[in-house]
Amino acid sequence: MDNLKISFLGGVNEIGKNMTVLEYGKDMIIIDSGLSFPDEAMPGVDLVVQDVSYLAANKSKIRGIFITHGHEDHIGSICYLLDHIKAPIYASRVTLGLIENKLREAKKTNIMLKSIKSGSVIVAGNFKVEFISVTHSIPGAMALAITTPAGIAVHTGDFKIDFTPVGNDICDLKRLAEIGKKGVTLLMCESTNVEREGFSMSESVVGKTMDGLFAKLKDKRIIIATFASNVHRLQQILDLAVKYKRKIAFTGRSMVNVSDMAIKLGELKCDKEIIVDIEKIEKYADKELVILSTGSQGENMSALTRMASDNFPKVKLNEHDAVILSAAPIPGNEKAVNTIINNLYRKGCKVIYNELADVHASGHAYKEELKIMHSLIKPKFFIPVHGEYRHLKNHQMLAKELGMKERDIIIPELGMKVEVNKDVMKVCGTVPAGEVLIDGTGLGDRDSNVIRDRLTLSQDGVCAIVVTISKKSRQIVCPPEIISRGFIYQQEATDIITEAKETIFKNLKAADLKSLDQQELRNTIRKVSTNFFFKKTKRKPMILSIVTEV
Amino acid sequence: MDNLKISFLGGVNEIGKNMTVLEYGKDMIIIDSGLSFPDEAMPGVDLVVQDVSYLAANKSKIRGIFITHGHEDHIGSICYLLDHIKAPIYASRVTLGLIENKLREAKKTNIMLKSIKSGSVIVAGNFKVEFISVTHSIPGAMALAITTPAGIAVHTGDFKIDFTPVGNDICDLKRLAEIGKKGVTLLMCESTNVEREGFSMSESVVGKTMDGLFAKLKDKRIIIATFASNVHRLQQILDLAVKYKRKIAFTGRSMVNVSDMAIKLGELKCDKEIIVDIEKIEKYADKELVILSTGSQGENMSALTRMASDNFPKVKLNEHDAVILSAAPIPGNEKAVNTIINNLYRKGCKVIYNELADVHASGHAYKEELKIMHSLIKPKFFIPVHGEYRHLKNHQMLAKELGMKERDIIIPELGMKVEVNKDVMKVCGTVPAGEVLIDGTGLGDRDSNVIRDRLTLSQDGVCAIVVTISKKSRQIVCPPEIISRGFIYQQEATDIITEAKETIFKNLKAADLKSLDQQELRNTIRKVSTNFFFKKTKRKPMILSIVTEV
Repeated sequence: MDNLKISFLGGVNEIGKNMTVLEYGKDMIIIDSGLSFPDEAMPGVDLVVQDVSYLAANKSKIRGIFITHGHEDHIGSICYLLDHIKAPIYASRVTLGLIENKLREAKKTNIMLKSIKSGSVIVAGNFKVEFISVTHSIPGAMALAITTPAGIAVHTGDFKIDFTPVGNDICDLKRLAEIGKKGVTLLMCESTNVEREGFSMSESVVGKTMDGLFAKLKDKRIIIATFASNVHRLQQILDLAVKYKRKIAFTGRSMVNVSDMAIKLGELKCDKEIIVDIEKIEKYADKELVILSTGSQGENMSALTRMASDNFPKVKLNEHDAVILSAAPIPGNEKAVNTIINNLYRKGCKVIYNELADVHASGHAYKEELKIMHSLIKPKFFIPVHGEYRHLKNHQMLAKELGMKERDIIIPELGMKVEVNKDVMKVCGTVPAGEVLIDGTGLGDRDSNVIRDRLTLSQDGVCAIVVTISKKSRQIVCPPEIISRGFIYQQEATDIITEAKETIFKNLKAADLKSLDQQELRNTIRKVSTNFFFKKTKRKPMILSIVTEV
Repeated sequence: MDNLKISFLGGVNEIGKNMTVLEYGKDMIIIDSGLSFPDEAMPGVDLVVQDVSYLAANKSKIRGIFITHGHEDHIGSICYLLDHIKAPIYASRVTLGLIENKLREAKKTNIMLKSIKSGSVIVAGNFKVEFISVTHSIPGAMALAITTPAGIAVHTGDFKIDFTPVGNDICDLKRLAEIGKKGVTLLMCESTNVEREGFSMSESVVGKTMDGLFAKLKDKRIIIATFASNVHRLQQILDLAVKYKRKIAFTGRSMVNVSDMAIKLGELKCDKEIIVDIEKIEKYADKELVILSTGSQGENMSALTRMASDNFPKVKLNEHDAVILSAAPIPGNEKAVNTIINNLYRKGCKVIYNELADVHASGHAYKEELKIMHSLIKPKFFIPVHGEYRHLKNHQMLAKELGMKERDIIIPELGMKVEVNKDVMKVCGTVPAGEVLIDGTGLGDRDSNVIRDRLTLSQDGVCAIVVTISKKSRQIVCPPEIISRGFIYQQEATDIITEAKETIFKNLKAADLKSLDQQELRNTIRKVSTNFFFKKTKRKPMILSIVTEV
């Protein structure tokens, strides 16, 4: 009998671009296909996706793409993936709705999309994949129980255990327990909040807090910024709008798109009467309105960011407004969110955010919830997923506290290939894996000269130096030209550049130009000017030296 | 009678570069002179200091510089300030020790430094400045009670109220109460932690946690990273080293400098026997050693960062090591600290940090502590300081909860000038204020072209295009030369550049060069190439177009 093999193409030792590949015999399935957003070490980059060359090389084996839920870090690279392979996509209704938007934008057609429900079982070659409903900060989130001849593997996707969830997206503990009872060979469980003690707050607490706020803010216009995909939260806000006799307006591209989609699918239930066009809100008094907006992460150009900086004509904020940031900043976004909060206060708005009230609940299981998952599944082997190394490591420690042996746990690395059967789990090799930076129409990697040069350019700027010499006499034909950007401050005299020209000219004249080839000449110019500029400014601009021969 | 006038040159509506100026009649005093570190919107910049032109213009009035404590955001711009004005500096012993290091490095001599103690009163023209001990995360922190003919102003500096502090740096509540009893006209109180409920954790809790860790980690080498200036924390660690019979080694420039200074001043009390040179630690077994290191903020090139990335020959980490990060990441440093934690776990170290244990206590007052300060001082007027707008605003709300009227509170802005006497407080104007970026030997501002160009360069790189034309005929002498950096990926064919050259050449040939001056010619080149590149790559490199005439 064969072993089940698992390769990690993303989502381990990093946050984002989740992708796991399962193989058995001649069959392969893919779990999730997400993207990451570039960090400050990748200036100018648009998006980051997985290296999918391993999948491209195994095209014929791929039986399906199984998506756990519709967040960008789980679906964002689907179009890039579909440039390289062809396979049906299985996902819940809401997840498919979000995927369809992407396919439409990328003008991808002929993709087989299969809508599943909790309890659906898909047979894909040697794999029998059961979808099991879990609670998360988006509807239609699923865990996967994957039966193979080598045993059952459970992948939790992202989840929390919310005993008082909003809507019907319960975490199906009963089914998870049944599967656990059957005997699970391998658990792959998310690790995001493993360092947080206790239980995550229930989504319904957010509703209660908001109810209190609506009561208190009864004379104010209420603007709420949250993730568009958190349809449960949108539902609670819609219900409050009804309760407090307010109309609701959506603003921001993703908020409009997702709410439209969710209403069409019946995931967001509301009387259409209460929805008003954002262009027509001036018809209503402040106390008759709720505005639901994007921008809770301080994203550049998002609706809330523009409102806060007076750059959004549709909604002008002032002291009659109360703004609720119903979100927590994702690591890295703290400063942008800070700026928004500062700007909102300056406008005289009442501002309510995470630090001041329970207006946000995490969608990821805390320590005690993870313990419940482990205890229900009781796997033979465990691989922590979805997290940086610190999270995976702490999840390993948690599993050990629950009685697992260290040898039965593997902390995965990007590109690691693990094989497992009912008796043994071990690392069996590596597959090509890594990050692909999408930059305009180009593709790069973090270590490319392009990224390194951009970081260098951002430090001290650039200086182009052109020297023209005569082909015949090898003498300088006209004095050096210098153009610089990002280097010399206005306050600094322009004579730095004038002096630099003279210095280069003098040095080249002193050199025996006849004995120097183009390359040597360019190096001389670079060396002379770098030294000169550093002496004068303690800065080191990038030097582009160009020698024209006429 | 004159009014007391207060101008805010830093530390309001921002974190860092604290500086407040008080004026009465012909006298001026300065409170603090700190710096900020550049944010991601200021690439290549070394430090940020205040615009001190208002002080330079009033040189003759300045009677003294009063420093509340020795953190960089309170002393870091002192050398820059002293380039523009001359005045004695009053501060506690430890604060002066840190200032002296700066003056030495900047080779500044002839600066009058006056060491003060809690209770010291300095007469500076119309000002009588009393120093009052407060607790903070550095020894020798002081609040100031400033008596003027217009009333008493209290400036808290940075503080917390720690009922079980380490060492003798108590928060002198009794003296603050006495001054409050006399009648305080104006309170300026720090706002950093105003959004945090309850009381801050006592520094001595950190000691207790560490004691437990030392007991548990008895076979491991212990490495602790913390702020060098947190001498109270260093003291607790030294005491634990003695208790657990370990030697202690200091590493990292500021850790070595500050511990040296603190030992010399008697602020850090220890038997010299227990200190060993970091170069000689291999003489000791793991369980006989504690290493105290810099790098708790993940600073580039700091000792801990280098240890974690295997780039610090003196200390090689492995599974026999336990690393305690005794600090919380300052906003903006989260990712860098994350990377260190991940790297440490990878090396097999035991890692203990803020999220897992009480190994750090904030040095700033929480809500209830701020309420104590307000209640003891009971000022007529209030100005919240040290914080972003959100903090100042929340501090205003807190003062209102405590019974103050909104009209008796002013939220300051950078450059705002406020005047106050026993009956009235009002804004009376503005003074020049802002940030000065120190970049090598140059000075800039955030809005300068240099900074804007660097940000642009970091996005899509740069492309220098040189066209040589004949002075006489105005014809192109040789084909365009192009050099680019940070723009074209290796994976992209080089024919983008070749094609660009041809396109530019073709376009210039088609144009009537005789009718174009240099500027117009350069613009044409820029336009043609920008369009071409965007069509090909969806990227917009900065174009440097250079026309040489021969």
